[in-house]
Amino acid sequence: MLPKPIQNFVDLFAKLPSIGPRQATRLAFYIKTLGDAPVADLAKAVDDLRNVKICPQCFFSYLGPKNTCDICNNNQRRKDIIAIVEKETDLISLEKTKKFSGRYLVLGELKKDGVLDSLQKLRLSSLKKMIDKDLGGQAEEIILAMNPTTYGDLNAALILQDLKGRVKKISRLGIGLPTGGEIEFADEDTLGNAIDNRG
Amino acid sequence: MLPKPIQNFVDLFAKLPSIGPRQATRLAFYIKTLGDAPVADLAKAVDDLRNVKICPQCFFSYLGPKNTCDICNNNQRRKDIIAIVEKETDLISLEKTKKFSGRYLVLGELKKDGVLDSLQKLRLSSLKKMIDKDLGGQAEEIILAMNPTTYGDLNAALILQDLKGRVKKISRLGIGLPTGGEIEFADEDTLGNAIDNRG
Repeated sequence: MLPKPIQNFVDLFAKLPSIGPRQATRLAFYIKTLGDAPVADLAKAVDDLRNVKICPQCFFSYLGPKNTCDICNNNQRRKDIIAIVEKETDLISLEKTKKFSGRYLVLGELKKDGVLDSLQKLRLSSLKKMIDKDLGGQAEEIILAMNPTTYGDLNAALILQDLKGRVKKISRLGIGLPTGGEIEFADEDTLGNAIDNRG
Repeated sequence: MLPKPIQNFVDLFAKLPSIGPRQATRLAFYIKTLGDAPVADLAKAVDDLRNVKICPQCFFSYLGPKNTCDICNNNQRRKDIIAIVEKETDLISLEKTKKFSGRYLVLGELKKDGVLDSLQKLRLSSLKKMIDKDLGGQAEEIILAMNPTTYGDLNAALILQDLKGRVKKISRLGIGLPTGGEIEFADEDTLGNAIDNRG
């Protein structure tokens, strides 16, 4: 029933998180009506995501010729204070508060069952290697900046266990974040307070 | 803060209906993590939408070498019974019921203020020309298959006015559709009943 390019678009985009087949179908028809040039622009915008690199140290995305991202390259930022976040968008929200001048580790979206997947384990290993190599085996502070939800707590406990002995102080984001809420949706003030009052 | 390709993706995709900046940002990071080949596939799926043609008669999308779409090309379908729908997805929902064997006119998304825009007026003109040229000036039936909402009713009244004299019978989709509901979300049975009981 659907023309093949529309069906193909729907099949691929319906698999993306928070886009279902219905939204994908409406998007396909909508995008089609924009005309050839805007369609080409959208296609290029998708394709250009391939140019984005993943920082081998913190696993945030970056662009440019360097081997690590702007945050990891910034010597003004303390290397021995590391915030472990779940998603890139959480890192961005924290950066916007301008209250944190350490480094990050982007862990990847946490499973609801509180089990770290192999990618997350690899990323934690990479952090531990960095601590051993660059920080003499012990970081000053690690902030477990996960959402204050049940599975965030579960995962924080697992990570805490994993990093034992390699860090002087472990903290979580403090008051300001309502329990059950999500970092992404907090306003900058609330999130700034949470950084100030971490512990 | 965001790498340029991500920012560019967000800027373009946040403009699409029902995608905001937050969802666009999450999509960009998610798509990036899929790896190069899936990113290229998604980009191509968008780009290939350019190959879809718009039928000059009913304004539905189609693919192929012909000048009109499969529905308009199908001589088994009555040319003198026309369902006027708002969106392509409404046409698809009606087709799935297999209860309608006439033709369509896709009018484009209706404004909430009950005023037809210039594109919609052009499409109605094209229908009127077809009626004059191919149907001797009068269609057998036109089904105003708009949503049974306030602005659907408003627009249906405008179209009714516009087509006066060019059609023997004007109908709306019948019982089965709850007032205030939307065609897209009706199950096939309900929608089939609505076609059977149109009037």
